[in-house]
Amino acid sequence: MAFEKIKRSENYSEWYNNLVNNADLAEHSAVKGCMVIKPYGYAIWEKMQQQLDKMFKDTGHSNAYFPLFVPKSLFEKEEKNAEGFAKECAIVTHYRLKADPNNPGKLIPDPDSKLTEELIVRPTSEAIIWNTYKNWIQSYRDLPILINQWANVVRWEMRTRLFLRTAEFLWQEGHTAHATKQEAMDETVQMLNVYSEFAESFMAIPVIKGIKTENERFAGADETFCIEGMMQDGKALQMGTSHFLGQNFAKAFEVKFQSKEGKLDYVWATSWGVSTRLMGALIMVHSDDEGLVLPPKLAPIQVVAVPIYKTEEEHQAILAKFDEILGQLKKLGISIKLDDRDTYKPGFKFAEWELKGVPVRLAMGPRDLANGTVELARRDIKTKEVVSLDGIDVFVANLLEEIQNSLFQRALSFRKEKYFEVNNWNEFLDVINNKQGFAFAHWDGTNETESKIKELTKATIRCIPMDNLQEDGVCILTGNPSKQRVVFAKSY
Amino acid sequence: MAFEKIKRSENYSEWYNNLVNNADLAEHSAVKGCMVIKPYGYAIWEKMQQQLDKMFKDTGHSNAYFPLFVPKSLFEKEEKNAEGFAKECAIVTHYRLKADPNNPGKLIPDPDSKLTEELIVRPTSEAIIWNTYKNWIQSYRDLPILINQWANVVRWEMRTRLFLRTAEFLWQEGHTAHATKQEAMDETVQMLNVYSEFAESFMAIPVIKGIKTENERFAGADETFCIEGMMQDGKALQMGTSHFLGQNFAKAFEVKFQSKEGKLDYVWATSWGVSTRLMGALIMVHSDDEGLVLPPKLAPIQVVAVPIYKTEEEHQAILAKFDEILGQLKKLGISIKLDDRDTYKPGFKFAEWELKGVPVRLAMGPRDLANGTVELARRDIKTKEVVSLDGIDVFVANLLEEIQNSLFQRALSFRKEKYFEVNNWNEFLDVINNKQGFAFAHWDGTNETESKIKELTKATIRCIPMDNLQEDGVCILTGNPSKQRVVFAKSY
Repeated sequence: MAFEKIKRSENYSEWYNNLVNNADLAEHSAVKGCMVIKPYGYAIWEKMQQQLDKMFKDTGHSNAYFPLFVPKSLFEKEEKNAEGFAKECAIVTHYRLKADPNNPGKLIPDPDSKLTEELIVRPTSEAIIWNTYKNWIQSYRDLPILINQWANVVRWEMRTRLFLRTAEFLWQEGHTAHATKQEAMDETVQMLNVYSEFAESFMAIPVIKGIKTENERFAGADETFCIEGMMQDGKALQMGTSHFLGQNFAKAFEVKFQSKEGKLDYVWATSWGVSTRLMGALIMVHSDDEGLVLPPKLAPIQVVAVPIYKTEEEHQAILAKFDEILGQLKKLGISIKLDDRDTYKPGFKFAEWELKGVPVRLAMGPRDLANGTVELARRDIKTKEVVSLDGIDVFVANLLEEIQNSLFQRALSFRKEKYFEVNNWNEFLDVINNKQGFAFAHWDGTNETESKIKELTKATIRCIPMDNLQEDGVCILTGNPSKQRVVFAKSY
Repeated sequence: MAFEKIKRSENYSEWYNNLVNNADLAEHSAVKGCMVIKPYGYAIWEKMQQQLDKMFKDTGHSNAYFPLFVPKSLFEKEEKNAEGFAKECAIVTHYRLKADPNNPGKLIPDPDSKLTEELIVRPTSEAIIWNTYKNWIQSYRDLPILINQWANVVRWEMRTRLFLRTAEFLWQEGHTAHATKQEAMDETVQMLNVYSEFAESFMAIPVIKGIKTENERFAGADETFCIEGMMQDGKALQMGTSHFLGQNFAKAFEVKFQSKEGKLDYVWATSWGVSTRLMGALIMVHSDDEGLVLPPKLAPIQVVAVPIYKTEEEHQAILAKFDEILGQLKKLGISIKLDDRDTYKPGFKFAEWELKGVPVRLAMGPRDLANGTVELARRDIKTKEVVSLDGIDVFVANLLEEIQNSLFQRALSFRKEKYFEVNNWNEFLDVINNKQGFAFAHWDGTNETESKIKELTKATIRCIPMDNLQEDGVCILTGNPSKQRVVFAKSY
């Protein structure tokens, strides 16, 4: 491929940007901060969507769609939420363009079309949704409401990175309403578990499930749960959040229900979301200096077949054999691609599919055809072997499963190596600055200490792990008493 | 159900609004002109999406995603397109809110966050997409580009109707780029055929395929193809359009490619789209005074089962039998729902599922159980029959197919009855004003006559049917010579 390779060890950040561009995943657009998700990148996102959507439906949720715009007066209602997002809102103020009288062929916002109330492009949809739920909920019989939305949202960003931080991104946001606190809390934890199951079993990324500190909590939530993954540079990436919203939105929007016993009470709420940011995690955890590495369960193409021939007769014979093999693979639900382009040589094709992270490559030449074999290459560990065509379908199906597991194990081993229990400030600095990993350390539980540590090291508390061991210790910074360790890391 | 029924014959428009609300399909939101698509309505839209998406992929297209916003300078580039949409654009002018100094707790757009260039919320994406394609296309080897996008778009509307006309709506927009005029024209027609196949085979709505007159053409297109359906009030609804864009966008955005022969030329383009408007067509064509009627291929629930019992023993025995039957149906890919709510009586449930348009209802009481039968009700023609449980799965599968066909035939017969060849102005007025149907009439081919007829009757030319018979005639209004008839109707 005609592109400059950048090594992870040289410049991880440039390696990432380069890979996202060269593997045709996404690119910057003419709109500051907004990206174009290219077909190959979007195909991976679609695989993620399909699986998540299935998991949401299996846990009783339905999809719906709410407006893109939030009237300012609704946006303001939940104060913490409004405050949290106010500084990054795109604001619609006019609804019509007209010809610019001073500039022929150009348009200007028509001053007569100024809105009496500005519209906020949703940065998240709690406000518009809870204003809607108000009309849907009167009695306990109307609960629970279990709704998810696939949508675009806008959070203005000055410094953007493809997939990781963009002004517009795609996501899903679940918004549920419950009669009891316990039920809402159970839902919050259930969806966190759905996310961690998705991350580990489909993305092949081990995650730490935990609770955010107050500093890092979602604006408007009583408690934010999260899953955190470790990238190859030892930084953390928050991959999904599930919020227990308490009665905050119900109170802001006056949403009460009559219980079985006839008592009026505010409704309990959750919200939870993952976004195209997951694409960033997927790329950063598994890929290598040759390009993308995709876990088979999320690869749009799982097996690519490349014929190698000199004569047209050989070509046709190999195509016929591939046709047979790919048919068998397809029957097992394996997604396949035959690369029969005559404009490129096999070496070029090999490099291209490596760059694009296709898990398994089959190449067949005249000698393979004569021997009843095929050359099989694994993308993840870059091994090649000659395999018999007898039972190739089951062989490949098993191999895909093995690759899926192996990627997870590799990521898990990496994380274990980079995950350190530290007991004092020097050890902490060594992990954050030199070893570049996660530091599991005692913290005195105050916002001040957390902020101070961030200021000194750029490391933040990623989460307090769920089911955390309670033990006596002292804070690495202040020496004040602590009851548990928390996970510190630099993060995306 | 506790809602007021409105008859189609009394007030078709109110009947529609009432049905959309009561069947839980959609509702107006707090944002003027924007709708909330409720879970049941969204489930139908998802069925449509899945089928269309499959048909797009089967014809070689991939999905991608382009930004929500279009910088004003790009929006202006294709002049006709800009002119056509300028009057209905939501315009983002600021990117940050700040506390209102005069009004504690309230927010205002921060004047310091005023954008140097306004952003248009996409009313359609040709501009942003062609500005992107410019960088993707150098040579004939980069063509064709066959991309579709599922997205929300905003076209400001003052008078809105749920699904039919809303400020924000959901749609898909295909945008393709080709090396030759012929290839682009073939693509335009191919996608029109995909739409008509979807309308007829899945929505069970017969459509007229045709070409729009210049007056009704998409802003920026050389030719607009469309499919038009007839609603039960005899009005037309444009259900999908496929545009041959010529080289207009390539010229506006300077997109040239080098041909095999080394010659530089502008790229040829198409775009095509259908939207949540299709929901309006689906509702209006098939439904009746009792509620929604859904074609089985798009029904989220195809079969609902209602147990009828007095004692808990009967209840359990019937549930056990339903479990068995529904398992058989599920194996055949039929989507089923068991309505075992103990808070409602069977009569209430029957009415609810009728309102929601579930094609087939199974009800089983103790006598049915003893006899090995079930009461089966068809939603479309409201017949009931007692059916043996032997082979019930195949029976229901065949019945669903029969209902699908029968709905199409019913709609086709209706359209035939309301489709009139007219030969003079009085006959024309009679069809448009009294018979309320489509008038197939000679027209002199001028914009002036078309506009005059619209002014006099509110009827517009819906399309010039494809493969139209060429014959000599005289224009119904002017008496000027005409070579072919065109389809006139009032429309949504």
